[in-house]
Amino acid sequence: MKFAMPTDTDISVFEQHESAARGYCRRFNTLFTQARGSRMLAADGRSYIDFLAGCGALNYGHNDPDMSAALVAHIQRDGLAMGLDLHTDAKRNFLALFTSRLLAPRGLSYRVQFTGPTGTNAVEAAMKLARKVTGRQNIIAFTNGYHGVSMGALAATGSQYNRMGLPLPGVTRMPYDQYFGAQVDTADYLAQMLEDPSSGIDAPAAILLEAVQGEGGLNAARPAWIRRVAEIAQRFGALLIVDDVQAGCGRTGTFFSFEGMAVEPDLVVLSKSISGYGLPMSLLLVRPDRDQWKPAEHNGTFRGNTHAFITAAVAVEKYWTSNWLARQIDRNANTVGAALQDMATLVPGAYCKGRGMMQGLHVGTGALADAICKLCFERGLIIETSGPNDEVVKILAAVNTPSDVLEQGLAILRRSVEDAVRLQPNAAAPVAALALDLQRAVA
Amino acid sequence: MKFAMPTDTDISVFEQHESAARGYCRRFNTLFTQARGSRMLAADGRSYIDFLAGCGALNYGHNDPDMSAALVAHIQRDGLAMGLDLHTDAKRNFLALFTSRLLAPRGLSYRVQFTGPTGTNAVEAAMKLARKVTGRQNIIAFTNGYHGVSMGALAATGSQYNRMGLPLPGVTRMPYDQYFGAQVDTADYLAQMLEDPSSGIDAPAAILLEAVQGEGGLNAARPAWIRRVAEIAQRFGALLIVDDVQAGCGRTGTFFSFEGMAVEPDLVVLSKSISGYGLPMSLLLVRPDRDQWKPAEHNGTFRGNTHAFITAAVAVEKYWTSNWLARQIDRNANTVGAALQDMATLVPGAYCKGRGMMQGLHVGTGALADAICKLCFERGLIIETSGPNDEVVKILAAVNTPSDVLEQGLAILRRSVEDAVRLQPNAAAPVAALALDLQRAVA
Amino acid sequence: MKFAMPTDTDISVFEQHESAARGYCRRFNTLFTQARGSRMLAADGRSYIDFLAGCGALNYGHNDPDMSAALVAHIQRDGLAMGLDLHTDAKRNFLALFTSRLLAPRGLSYRVQFTGPTGTNAVEAAMKLARKVTGRQNIIAFTNGYHGVSMGALAATGSQYNRMGLPLPGVTRMPYDQYFGAQVDTADYLAQMLEDPSSGIDAPAAILLEAVQGEGGLNAARPAWIRRVAEIAQRFGALLIVDDVQAGCGRTGTFFSFEGMAVEPDLVVLSKSISGYGLPMSLLLVRPDRDQWKPAEHNGTFRGNTHAFITAAVAVEKYWTSNWLARQIDRNANTVGAALQDMATLVPGAYCKGRGMMQGLHVGTGALADAICKLCFERGLIIETSGPNDEVVKILAAVNTPSDVLEQGLAILRRSVEDAVRLQPNAAAPVAALALDLQRAVA
Amino acid sequence: MKFAMPTDTDISVFEQHESAARGYCRRFNTLFTQARGSRMLAADGRSYIDFLAGCGALNYGHNDPDMSAALVAHIQRDGLAMGLDLHTDAKRNFLALFTSRLLAPRGLSYRVQFTGPTGTNAVEAAMKLARKVTGRQNIIAFTNGYHGVSMGALAATGSQYNRMGLPLPGVTRMPYDQYFGAQVDTADYLAQMLEDPSSGIDAPAAILLEAVQGEGGLNAARPAWIRRVAEIAQRFGALLIVDDVQAGCGRTGTFFSFEGMAVEPDLVVLSKSISGYGLPMSLLLVRPDRDQWKPAEHNGTFRGNTHAFITAAVAVEKYWTSNWLARQIDRNANTVGAALQDMATLVPGAYCKGRGMMQGLHVGTGALADAICKLCFERGLIIETSGPNDEVVKILAAVNTPSDVLEQGLAILRRSVEDAVRLQPNAAAPVAALALDLQRAVA
Repeated sequence: MKFAMPTDTDISVFEQHESAARGYCRRFNTLFTQARGSRMLAADGRSYIDFLAGCGALNYGHNDPDMSAALVAHIQRDGLAMGLDLHTDAKRNFLALFTSRLLAPRGLSYRVQFTGPTGTNAVEAAMKLARKVTGRQNIIAFTNGYHGVSMGALAATGSQYNRMGLPLPGVTRMPYDQYFGAQVDTADYLAQMLEDPSSGIDAPAAILLEAVQGEGGLNAARPAWIRRVAEIAQRFGALLIVDDVQAGCGRTGTFFSFEGMAVEPDLVVLSKSISGYGLPMSLLLVRPDRDQWKPAEHNGTFRGNTHAFITAAVAVEKYWTSNWLARQIDRNANTVGAALQDMATLVPGAYCKGRGMMQGLHVGTGALADAICKLCFERGLIIETSGPNDEVVKILAAVNTPSDVLEQGLAILRRSVEDAVRLQPNAAAPVAALALDLQRAVA
Repeated sequence: MKFAMPTDTDISVFEQHESAARGYCRRFNTLFTQARGSRMLAADGRSYIDFLAGCGALNYGHNDPDMSAALVAHIQRDGLAMGLDLHTDAKRNFLALFTSRLLAPRGLSYRVQFTGPTGTNAVEAAMKLARKVTGRQNIIAFTNGYHGVSMGALAATGSQYNRMGLPLPGVTRMPYDQYFGAQVDTADYLAQMLEDPSSGIDAPAAILLEAVQGEGGLNAARPAWIRRVAEIAQRFGALLIVDDVQAGCGRTGTFFSFEGMAVEPDLVVLSKSISGYGLPMSLLLVRPDRDQWKPAEHNGTFRGNTHAFITAAVAVEKYWTSNWLARQIDRNANTVGAALQDMATLVPGAYCKGRGMMQGLHVGTGALADAICKLCFERGLIIETSGPNDEVVKILAAVNTPSDVLEQGLAILRRSVEDAVRLQPNAAAPVAALALDLQRAVA
Repeated sequence: MKFAMPTDTDISVFEQHESAARGYCRRFNTLFTQARGSRMLAADGRSYIDFLAGCGALNYGHNDPDMSAALVAHIQRDGLAMGLDLHTDAKRNFLALFTSRLLAPRGLSYRVQFTGPTGTNAVEAAMKLARKVTGRQNIIAFTNGYHGVSMGALAATGSQYNRMGLPLPGVTRMPYDQYFGAQVDTADYLAQMLEDPSSGIDAPAAILLEAVQGEGGLNAARPAWIRRVAEIAQRFGALLIVDDVQAGCGRTGTFFSFEGMAVEPDLVVLSKSISGYGLPMSLLLVRPDRDQWKPAEHNGTFRGNTHAFITAAVAVEKYWTSNWLARQIDRNANTVGAALQDMATLVPGAYCKGRGMMQGLHVGTGALADAICKLCFERGLIIETSGPNDEVVKILAAVNTPSDVLEQGLAILRRSVEDAVRLQPNAAAPVAALALDLQRAVA
Repeated sequence: MKFAMPTDTDISVFEQHESAARGYCRRFNTLFTQARGSRMLAADGRSYIDFLAGCGALNYGHNDPDMSAALVAHIQRDGLAMGLDLHTDAKRNFLALFTSRLLAPRGLSYRVQFTGPTGTNAVEAAMKLARKVTGRQNIIAFTNGYHGVSMGALAATGSQYNRMGLPLPGVTRMPYDQYFGAQVDTADYLAQMLEDPSSGIDAPAAILLEAVQGEGGLNAARPAWIRRVAEIAQRFGALLIVDDVQAGCGRTGTFFSFEGMAVEPDLVVLSKSISGYGLPMSLLLVRPDRDQWKPAEHNGTFRGNTHAFITAAVAVEKYWTSNWLARQIDRNANTVGAALQDMATLVPGAYCKGRGMMQGLHVGTGALADAICKLCFERGLIIETSGPNDEVVKILAAVNTPSDVLEQGLAILRRSVEDAVRLQPNAAAPVAALALDLQRAVA
């Protein structure tokens, strides 16, 4: 990548004309102009290492050159950009590759539903389908889960900040794995509640979970817990929906977050990195006997983002037809894990969370995590927090980040942890740094 | 456009692996490979005139060459593809152009909220914001309205087929303009209901409407009715939300559907053609005093589809900085209107509906409309139905369709109307053609 | 009745210890001690004519001596006071009389469900049963309807004041007969909305209506309208529920409000005067094929108020085994109607509303109606307002009020109308008199 | 009591004409005619000991002679039977006694709200008031809770059988004390869920609980748990509502179930035995600062059941102005407890539950409990089951049951337990006896 030199760094137009709803740009308050792999360039000439990766939408990094080339070729040959859900060659190619190269080798025979190209839309489709198939309304979701902000999905999302006090019926909340500590198996509670005819928990249409809760603070459920939940779902006639929007597409080391757990969900939600290139795209994988949709019963104009199919097909072929990426993720995850373990010693009470390439450091308070991320940004590293109180510094780097870049980013992070702890031994972060955090706490 | 000769027309992969939720591809059951302007090419070498235009997402036709060029340049210079809601040069350029060239000349000072890139997501954002601003929950929507299928927006959508019998609270349904015929001013009813403290209609957070109901059967509200509804909204402390997803971006002749009506909505929803190129993109325009969002309160990974900003900027500059497109739309709309008036004489009881480049022919039954569209497709014209019973043949051609192509398409349509009427004088369409229709009727 | 002379008129205990939710006692702010027929006696020795009659719960007046005697005998022989829904002789006697003397002669074969002894509870039972029988959730209720304030029934109640801005899903509001004036048949609208598959009105479990809306302002639906609504219900697979809580038990001249209309509701709700004596009692009449309850699926401790069964049995035998009461009601209704017609000439724009012994005078404003009722009370007549803005002076006297007492009460009313109009020609009622009214208006 | 000899035992009228919703009468399938204290007489001349006591509505037994006398005197002097919520001498007397003799000595200063005379109605009032006061919608209720079956209260009731699969929004379910065994403090979970801003539990308007869950299986919460829940409510700005419908009025040994726990609920719901005589009556006690009702905002025709005020005043004076009843309850509760402990040894795995005069025996299965109750009824004892699977034999005798009658009833129960265990060692109850139970299990 040869970066052109931007001359104009003015961002006042955003402050004047963009809605107050804007978010990430407040922390990373500069004008980005170019990106490749794990590096982003800003208009002021500064270069950043990207440990945010489109919040998990860029698992393979920015602007993969093979995808760029394929997309340019598609555009230049007047391939369709917008095809509704018509049959197109681009869609056919993706569908054939995805089912034959990705699903079949894993013994999976899902039907693929192309929903509107946002994770929340695919979650909405999953919830509606589960309700239709079972004739029940109740969906069980978990503490700290995040599934999107449209009203159906929002009912399943835990965050009070996003829930906005709106009436959000149709979801029962249950404690996620280890929510009450390592000694308590919350699957027991779920089972007991469902067995008890006067528990007040209505018979569920579905149990909806993330195998690793990204926004919720990098909570990684134990495979045995997920397996038990799957059994409970089956036993009580509920569909199991795995929301793999953030944890899927290789993020945890395997393509799906639940591989190797002897679990086969009825429905799987994919989005974020499914296009490989960060283009809007979402899928709902549907067990064939659950595919009880009538034509266009769930619809949406952009459910066929043809450009995304082009890059998604490249992603399947390039990254998932042999094992090399999985091995690289494994190496990277080990690097990240070891570095975080080391950093944990710098903050009293800190500990590591997550698995694969979605690991992070619980530093105790949102104020400290915020201070760390702020120092990182000043030093050229883009990294965000997560967790109920934004108290987890979350590494969501591209899964294929080159090892030197990874090490470089981790070094910046380590230095920032050291400095943040030194600067605010009581985690009393400067007011400015706390702005967003306070705002959330107040909500 | 130089079409490559495809050799492979197999579409069995879709039947085997795509969910039963697929829709348009059932009627237009061929493999599309290329498109430019108003023409699409299929793998079997057949060429089609496109009177569907991505269901309104391709108002400027397929693959506008200036947009293609700008997008290729962006990709080739490693411009960001995925930027969350970070500041990017691409977004800045769009935002500056959109506000200065499009909003300002119309005397509008909206803030721009980039929502998840689907119309339904922007509608969800609008409904949530109205509820937040007013502290009320009830949203008034209209008969035959279509606003999307995620649970919040779905509550406002009229179609039973899409509503699926789900509990969809929070919306009160009122009759759209002329729903009870031309003699009845349904705005009177709305006002009476809201004035009456025991009508049972809760104080509304918002009144949500389309100026022309696309999916609902090309019902075009009279400006005076819209103005009255706007006054009623203001009088009762409700926000006015115009859903311009299908009727916006020039579809009715002006950029916004409500221009020239002396109405300034509090919130305007844009999607479909806003990117100009059919790429997923959605906006919510927010009157500054209504912009009471907290950071990321409504969020979503793909709320910054940078590629779409590139093409959207070209669209603003190319199509909306002078009047030529508006004039062309006007000419095309007249052509379409005259042709439809003429065709209406072929079907007893048929009549024209809609305005601008969203006009159609009410042919009495879904069966007849279906038969007509089927004949059109056989003859190389892609055209769809709309309306509660799919009884309206809907022309949704690119607004800038060249006049010769437009005439050619209209000629196919006219012939198909003639033949369909002749073949089924009692509108008893062949069983096959009725399949989808019946399925809907049964739902 | 020989009234004892009370010596203590202190009511401060209510102000100190009763909740602010108390209502009627604010207008009729005295201490009542005894009552018989249409007369009530207060602790200060004043006597009142009762044109409120327990808000319709005392259709046969206070303390019918035959009922008193039967009740005393029951108590003195240790008959059960509380029997849950066990079989008791008292219940058997009522049930046998009600079905054989009241239902059978009218060609009705309803099963009788004893619900919790409040109208709202019986309405809740009706709504739940309709939902169970049809598998649908939506219930259609009408503008200005009043059905109670527990959450299920409240969803069907129109009053904003009572709805309190709570989320009340599950009900669709439609305009009552003549809501948009005499020229408009709102049954047409209902039918059109239900026929239209994209009207946004979900398939209804039931249509719930009062034949005369008591709280809603004495709106009496035309028999032809009710018949059409009944046909619409049947056509669209919805149950017809008639809420006869206020309009039933002879209030309109016949036992049921819908007699002679060729309508047989699926479910009929009775309460208020069903015990004859003002004791808490409610019934749901259920068409046998709709009686799909499982045992105790809808339950409640007081669903067998044995004392009420004793008096209710007397009421059936005394008042409904021959025609004399119906004839008396007819005479009384004519007397009331004529008097109101006469009074209407005293107030510009005033007009009569209602039918049978639930008639009233629409005097234009709540302020004037309030002033009239206040003057009446000062002069020994208890009478209340109704209607969306409390603008209707409502005569709800016992249906068997002796003609001399009736004339006496009407004379007081007439004088009060005259004086109120004279005192406040612009209907600018004194502030005190307006207190309640304002409070409602503000709500 | 001198029982008259009834000659007619026919109950066919119930089978022909009463709705299938009837419940208790199925198990106790005879015609009751008279009752006094703890004895009931049937039409066939059989006498029964009553360990059901109107399901807790007859804490002082049937037809207390002082109440009978007062009620007869009231009727005979033409005291009001029905007074809406007007001021009456009867109501004044009750209100003065209740506040001065019952509340004041306990240091309580609640305002008294007279709601519709059913427990569910008072619960509805409590839930609405909590929502109004806090501006929040969410109400936390507990597993196995029972609060009534109107839609608002039903949302808080646990039983699937009663919930009927209806959409019941607005309530979050939490585990009751010891729901997950004695080792787990579920108040910790509640606190953790409420502290966590992304737990998905919305800020609560109220926490609603029974100190002893009657229908839920005689689960008696530990005072420390209730105290912690009260603290949690206060800490998170939620009102504490104690539903004392079944556990109040002396049932647990003190008038209120929560006395001596250092807890002062914001709202207390009373019903069932509040009238003392089994007449329909309900109260909501409201902390004065929470009494934010507008006049008649929550209303209902029968909110003033004057007859009930007469007997309720006697109850306060007779039973709660000295300590003798409390001491008798204590003695009776010890008798019951000891007897149940003894019986528990007869059934493998059986154990005692509850406290005060609401104790029972968990016998493992609903089938066995059902068989026991059936045998009891054959032997002249009326006793019911409770619990999620009807597996608890519940003694709900009048709290003042004479000791000889109590012993006699316990002896019948003991014999029935023995026989039931012998007859069905595997708890395989006869099919007939299981009918109701199976029906529930299937639901």
